[in-house]
Amino acid sequence: MNNNWILTVKTYNREKRASMEPVFSLGNGYMCSRGFFDEEQDGLLSLGGIYMAGIFGLARYTPWKGKGRELVNTPNFYSTKIFADNEAVTVDEEKISDFQIQLDMKTPKLNRSYVWTSSNGNKLRLEFERFISGSDLHTAGQKICITPIGCAPTIRIEVGINADVTNLNLVSSEPLPVQPGVKHLNLVYQDTNCILAEIRGYEDVAIAEGQKVSFKTPHNAEGLIHSTSNDCRHIFEYRGIENKCCEIEKIVYVYTSKDGEKDPLFRVKKLLEAEACYQEKLKEHKAAWNKRWEVSDIVVEGSEEDQISIRYNILQLIQSCPEHNSKLSIGARGLTGEMYEGCIFWDTEIFMLPFFTFTNPKAAQNLLKFRYHTLPEARKHAERNWFKGAMYPWQASEKGIEQTPLGVGAYYSIHIVADIAYSIMEYWNATRDEEFITEAGAEILIETARFWESRVHKNPFSGKYDILAVRGPNEYGVIVNNNLYTNMMAQQNLILAKAIIQLMKEKYSAEWEQLKDKIGFRDEEISRWDDIIENITLCYNAELDLYEEDDMYLSRVPLDMKKAKPTAKRIIDTTIPYEGLMLYQVTKQADVLHLMKNLHWRFTHQQKVNAWEYYVPKTCFDSSLAYSIHAVMAAQIGLHEEAYNYFKICANFDIRNVLLNTVSGLHFANFGGTWQAVVFGFAGLQVDEDHIKISPRLPNAWNSISFHIWYRGNLLKISVSKESTEVFLKKSNGKAICLKASNTEFILDESNNYTKLSMNGDQ
Amino acid sequence: MNNNWILTVKTYNREKRASMEPVFSLGNGYMCSRGFFDEEQDGLLSLGGIYMAGIFGLARYTPWKGKGRELVNTPNFYSTKIFADNEAVTVDEEKISDFQIQLDMKTPKLNRSYVWTSSNGNKLRLEFERFISGSDLHTAGQKICITPIGCAPTIRIEVGINADVTNLNLVSSEPLPVQPGVKHLNLVYQDTNCILAEIRGYEDVAIAEGQKVSFKTPHNAEGLIHSTSNDCRHIFEYRGIENKCCEIEKIVYVYTSKDGEKDPLFRVKKLLEAEACYQEKLKEHKAAWNKRWEVSDIVVEGSEEDQISIRYNILQLIQSCPEHNSKLSIGARGLTGEMYEGCIFWDTEIFMLPFFTFTNPKAAQNLLKFRYHTLPEARKHAERNWFKGAMYPWQASEKGIEQTPLGVGAYYSIHIVADIAYSIMEYWNATRDEEFITEAGAEILIETARFWESRVHKNPFSGKYDILAVRGPNEYGVIVNNNLYTNMMAQQNLILAKAIIQLMKEKYSAEWEQLKDKIGFRDEEISRWDDIIENITLCYNAELDLYEEDDMYLSRVPLDMKKAKPTAKRIIDTTIPYEGLMLYQVTKQADVLHLMKNLHWRFTHQQKVNAWEYYVPKTCFDSSLAYSIHAVMAAQIGLHEEAYNYFKICANFDIRNVLLNTVSGLHFANFGGTWQAVVFGFAGLQVDEDHIKISPRLPNAWNSISFHIWYRGNLLKISVSKESTEVFLKKSNGKAICLKASNTEFILDESNNYTKLSMNGDQ
Repeated sequence: MNNNWILTVKTYNREKRASMEPVFSLGNGYMCSRGFFDEEQDGLLSLGGIYMAGIFGLARYTPWKGKGRELVNTPNFYSTKIFADNEAVTVDEEKISDFQIQLDMKTPKLNRSYVWTSSNGNKLRLEFERFISGSDLHTAGQKICITPIGCAPTIRIEVGINADVTNLNLVSSEPLPVQPGVKHLNLVYQDTNCILAEIRGYEDVAIAEGQKVSFKTPHNAEGLIHSTSNDCRHIFEYRGIENKCCEIEKIVYVYTSKDGEKDPLFRVKKLLEAEACYQEKLKEHKAAWNKRWEVSDIVVEGSEEDQISIRYNILQLIQSCPEHNSKLSIGARGLTGEMYEGCIFWDTEIFMLPFFTFTNPKAAQNLLKFRYHTLPEARKHAERNWFKGAMYPWQASEKGIEQTPLGVGAYYSIHIVADIAYSIMEYWNATRDEEFITEAGAEILIETARFWESRVHKNPFSGKYDILAVRGPNEYGVIVNNNLYTNMMAQQNLILAKAIIQLMKEKYSAEWEQLKDKIGFRDEEISRWDDIIENITLCYNAELDLYEEDDMYLSRVPLDMKKAKPTAKRIIDTTIPYEGLMLYQVTKQADVLHLMKNLHWRFTHQQKVNAWEYYVPKTCFDSSLAYSIHAVMAAQIGLHEEAYNYFKICANFDIRNVLLNTVSGLHFANFGGTWQAVVFGFAGLQVDEDHIKISPRLPNAWNSISFHIWYRGNLLKISVSKESTEVFLKKSNGKAICLKASNTEFILDESNNYTKLSMNGDQ
Repeated sequence: MNNNWILTVKTYNREKRASMEPVFSLGNGYMCSRGFFDEEQDGLLSLGGIYMAGIFGLARYTPWKGKGRELVNTPNFYSTKIFADNEAVTVDEEKISDFQIQLDMKTPKLNRSYVWTSSNGNKLRLEFERFISGSDLHTAGQKICITPIGCAPTIRIEVGINADVTNLNLVSSEPLPVQPGVKHLNLVYQDTNCILAEIRGYEDVAIAEGQKVSFKTPHNAEGLIHSTSNDCRHIFEYRGIENKCCEIEKIVYVYTSKDGEKDPLFRVKKLLEAEACYQEKLKEHKAAWNKRWEVSDIVVEGSEEDQISIRYNILQLIQSCPEHNSKLSIGARGLTGEMYEGCIFWDTEIFMLPFFTFTNPKAAQNLLKFRYHTLPEARKHAERNWFKGAMYPWQASEKGIEQTPLGVGAYYSIHIVADIAYSIMEYWNATRDEEFITEAGAEILIETARFWESRVHKNPFSGKYDILAVRGPNEYGVIVNNNLYTNMMAQQNLILAKAIIQLMKEKYSAEWEQLKDKIGFRDEEISRWDDIIENITLCYNAELDLYEEDDMYLSRVPLDMKKAKPTAKRIIDTTIPYEGLMLYQVTKQADVLHLMKNLHWRFTHQQKVNAWEYYVPKTCFDSSLAYSIHAVMAAQIGLHEEAYNYFKICANFDIRNVLLNTVSGLHFANFGGTWQAVVFGFAGLQVDEDHIKISPRLPNAWNSISFHIWYRGNLLKISVSKESTEVFLKKSNGKAICLKASNTEFILDESNNYTKLSMNGDQ
C-alpha cells in the first residue's frame, strides 16, 4: 500500500485520546463511528461514539423556540473486552509498546495495534481493524487478532453490542467535563446477537442492530469455550499458544425505524441468517470507495504530507454526507461529535458544497434539497419574526427549525439567508441542473429575496437601505449595523432572484407560471428589489480604497492582539469575554475577505490587496472557518507562500487539534475549505457564466496537482504543474466547453478532448 | 388608628399569594420577613422567606467572574401549625371567610385574620400579628389568637423555628417554577427553643435563633397539654371554649457570626433567660418608628389612597436599609426576594439615595460608604478589563464583585460608574458632609473619572471622543455606541472630579496632599479630562432640537408598539426576544429623559418637551424604573396630570403587581422613585449650589403635601398647597438658608425660622 493514502499515528497519550478519537472516524453518511478503542469499556471510554444521520433525541438545552434536540450516541457495536489470565487489557502508556494507529483512506479502514504487557510480564500483540461499509449503508465490520508473544496465557474475549450508553457530553475545551450526557436509548429487546433500542421524547425511533461473530484460529485452540450471554455478547475463552494468532471477525447490521422498514429488528435478524464473510464485505466496501476516489481524489506531487492531509479532508467530507437521503444535510461537526447537536449552519453551503458540486453533483443536489424541504419552516420563521419570505435559521435542526440557544444571536446571523441563495447559483453555474433550479432553486431564491426586502430599512437621513443589527461572519463584532458581507450578499440575493425570474420567463415559462401562482409573485416586487439593489448601504472608504467590515469598524478601538491572544486558545476563552469584544477592532475570521472570495468580480485586485493588508493583522483566527478562506484569498492575490502556510493549517486542522476543540467533533467546513484552497486557490479554478477559468498559483513545495471535476454534465481531469496545464475531457455531455487559462481560450469537445498549455500562471 | 396608615387587603386568592407575600414584608435593615402565612407548612409555603442583610450562600448560576452567590432564605422563625380536631388549618378560598390582611405602617406590624371552617363545620376565628423590631435589630415578635365560634374543638398549635428550608427560587414571571432552590442551611444544633444553622461554600456563617413562647388564655384551658419536641418546637393542645380566645405570644432573637459575636448561640440563649414581654417589645419598636416617621413621613391631603401608598413606599425603603452597617447597601429587591440574588445596582444611588439623603443623611452616607469600601474591587475590575481607575460593577455583590451572569451585559452597562459619581455630588450638595467627601467621595470621583479617560476612544474621523459598545438605561437598545446618557454622565463625572479637586485644593489642602500621594494623581490628568469634556460625542439633531438616545436611534426601524406589547407582560416575555430588539426604535424606560432629570440645567425647557414628545410614544415601560422618572419629568415640564398618572402607577407598583414579577421581591428603585416623584416632581424641590428651590406643581387630586428634609445640617418642614408654600426651619445648624420659590428669594435662619408665600406655581 502506498504510504500517501495512510494517516499514521505512533504516539500514544491517554489524556489526549478523546481528542484523537474524532480524527479516526469512519462513516458512510448513514452512520459514523468515532475512532474510539474497541477494547476498553470503563467510564467515558465505554460510551463509544457512533452517530447516525437524522437520529436525534431530546436535549437539555433550550433553543430559541421549541424543544432542544441533539444527535444520539447510538449503541456501541464495537464493544469488546479482552482479558489475559483474568487481567483486563487497558491501553495505558506504561503497559503498551509499539503502538500504531493507521487510517487507510483508500479502503477506507482503521487499523490499530500494540503490544500489551500484563502485570505478570506476559506480552500480547493486539491488532484491530474496522470499517463502515461504503457499499452497504447498514453494514460495518470489525476484526481482532490476538497473538501471545513468548507466553501462553488464558485469553477471554467478549464481543458485543452495548446499548447502555449515554451521550458523551464532551464540550469544546479541555479539561473535559466528567458528567455523562443524556441517556437516550431504552433497550427493549436483546439476545446474543441482536438488540432493539428505542429513543423517545423528540421523535420516536427504534434502532435494531445485529452481530455475526466468528472465531478463527490457525491452531485448534486448547480449551476453547464459546459461550453466549443473556445480553448481546459472545464470550470466547481459550488457552493462547505462543506466537500464534487468534482472530475474531464480526459483521454488524444496523437498521432503524426511519429507514422505511416496519420492523427493523426483523430485517436485521433476516440478515443474520444469511451467510456473510468479513473479507467479502470488506472487498465490496473497497470497490465502492475505489469508484468514489476515481473522481474525488486530488493527486499532489511534491509533498507526501500534503497529499495525505488533502485526502484526509476529502475522505471525511464523503464519509459524513448523507447521500442516500435528500431530507438531510451535514452538520457542522458531521457525525463525529455532539457539538452544536448535529445542527446545520452556513458551513454546508458556503464551505462544503463546492466539493460535492464538482465531484458528486447528485450529493450536492441532495444537500440543497434539504433547504427546499425546510423552506416551509423558513417561511414560518420569517413570519414569526415579522419578516416576509423565508428566513433560514442560523442553526438548523434536521427539520429546519432554529436551534440556536436564546441569546446566542440567531436573530443577528442572518447572512445565512443570502449564503443559501448564493450557493444555489454557484451550483446552477456548475451543473446547469434544470430540474433542481425550476422545481426548488428558483423558489428559494425568490423567497430569500423577499426576506431581504422586508429586513432592510430605509435610513431617514441617508435615504439608503440599511441592514441593522446583524452579526456578520466576524462573530466577534457581536452586533453591528451594515455589515458589508451581509449587505452585499443580500444585494446579490436580490440580483440572483431577478436573474432567475428572467431565466424562468425565457426558458421555463410553464414552470414559471406555476411557481408564480404558488408563491403569489407580482412583478412590482422586482421594482422594489431594484431600488434596494441600487441604494443599499455598502461601507467603503474612498480615501483608503477600503471596503469596511461594517459602518463602525474603522472607528473602533485598536486591539493589542498579543495581549488579547497570548496562546492558541480563543480570545473569549482567555482574556476578553464575548460580550467585551464589540469595543475593539477584531475580526474572528475572514469577513470582508470572505465576501471578496464569494463575489470576486465586484472588487479590483487593489481592493483585495488593501483589504488583506488592513484586516489580516486584525484577525485572530478564532474559528475553524478562518484559515481556508485566507488560503484561497492569499492565492488569488498572488501571495502563494502565505496561502500555503494557511493551507497547511487548514489541511491539518483536526489532525493537529488547532483550536483544541476537536474532541467535540471534526470541523467539516474546514474540510470543504481545504478542498477550495487547493482547487479554487492553488489551481485557480473559477466557473463563470460561460467558461471555466484556470489560473494556477502552485506553492513552491508542490510540483503539480491533478483532480477531476464535473462541469455541466462533463467530467474533466485537470492537471496543473508549474510548467503546464492539462485538461482532459473524460466524459462529455455532447456540448463544447470553453476554457480559459493563462489568458488563452480553448474549446474542448468529444472530438477534441485533450489540451495542454505551457504557462507560468496568470497573476 | 387612622386609616391612612394602613394598607388593607380583603380579597384572597391562593394562586396569587406568592405575589402578595413580598408586599407585606416587614424588616429592620438587619433582617426582613416576607408576608408569608405563619400557619401553613406544606411545600413551597413551608419555606417562609426571611432574608438577612449580608447573609449569602453559593448560588447555582455562573457570574461574569468567580463564584455566584445568592441571598439565603434563613430559618422560618414564624413557623406554626394549627389543628382543630386533628384537621390542619389551611388557607383555602373555600374554607375561609372574613379574610383581612393589614399592614399597619405606623407601628409597623402585620395583622391578618379570617374565619376558618373545618370539614365538619366547626368555625375558628384566627388572628395573627407580627413585627420585626425597629428598636432592636435582633428581635422579632409573633402573636396568634384562636377563637372557636359556636363550637369547642380540640385545638393543637405547634410553634417553632424551621431551619429545614431551601431558597424559594421564585422567578420573575408566572406561572411559578415548582423546583425548590438551593438548600444553604445545615442544622448543627437545636433544642426546643434554639437552633444553630450554618452556611458554607460562599463564606462560613452561623445563624443562631431562639424563641420565647408564652401561652395566654383568659380561661383555664381545659385539658391543656404543653409539650416540647426534639426539634425547635412547642406544642400546645387544649379543648377550645366557645367564643373564648387563646393567645400565643412569641419573641424571637436572631444573631449571626457576622455580628461580632463569637458565639451567637450563647448570646441567644442568654437573651432567652431574661424576662421579656411581647407587648413591651412591641411598644419599644413602635416608639423607635415614631421617631423615624417624624422626619420621613410625607403628609398628603386630598387622597387617602395616595397617602397610604406614599407611606408604603417610604416604609419599605426604611425597612430594607442596613443603617447599622456601612459595609452593606440595598439590593434591587431589598431583602424581600431572591431576584438578582440580593445584588446592588444603580438603583441604590440614582433612585433610592435621595430619600435617605434628605430624611436620614447618616443612612445615605452609609450607602455611599459601601461604594468606598468596594473601591479596591472596582479598581481590580477596571484593571482586569484593561481600563484605568475604578470600574464599578453593574451588579455588585455585597463585596463589590461583578455578579452579572456572563453574556447579560456587564461589559456594557457602565453608566453605573458615572451614576455613582453623580450621586456623590448630589449627596455633597445636600449635606456638605466634609468628612465623607474628603475621606471617601473625592477618591471615588477621581478614580471614576480615570475610568472614563481610559474608556473613551478618539474617533479617527470626527476627532470626537466616542464611548463605544455600551448599554444605556434603555436596556432594549442591547448594545449601542455613544448612548447620550452614558456620554453626558461620563462628561459630568469628569467635570465633578475636576471640581472636587479644586475644592480639595482650596479648602482641604492637607487631605488633598494625602489623597494625591495615595492615588498618584498628577495635574496633567486634568488637561486630558478637559479635552474629553470639550470633545465628547453628544448625539443631537439640530433640525429637531432633539437629543438622540444614541448615534443610531433615529435611524432604527419604528416599532408597532401595539403589536409588540399586546398585554401588560414585557415585550421580551411575549413577542420579541431580547436579542431581537436592537433593530427597533424602542425604549424600555426613560433614557434621554432620565438624563434630563439628572442634569436638568443642561437642557432648555423646549428640549425637554421635544424629548418627551419624541421618546414617550417609543417607550414600553418594561422596567420598574420607568414610571417614577416619567412622573418627575412630566411634572417638571408642566404636564401635572400626566405626572399624576405615572405617579399612581409607581406608588402602587408592587401593590398592584404591575410588571407581574413582584413575586420575586419588591422593586426598591421604584420606591425611591416614588419619593422623588412627590418631592422633586410635585413639590418641585431642587437643591442647587447655593440655594433650595421649590416649584410646586400639585396634581388636581391633591390639596397639599408636607414633608421634612435635612439640608446641610438643618431640618426643614416644607408644606406646599395650591395656595401657598410654607417652610419652617425646625433645627438649624446656625447658618442662614437661601430659599427660592415662585421667583422669590428668601432667607431662613434661627431668628427668622418660618416663611409662608402665596403662589400659583412657577411654571
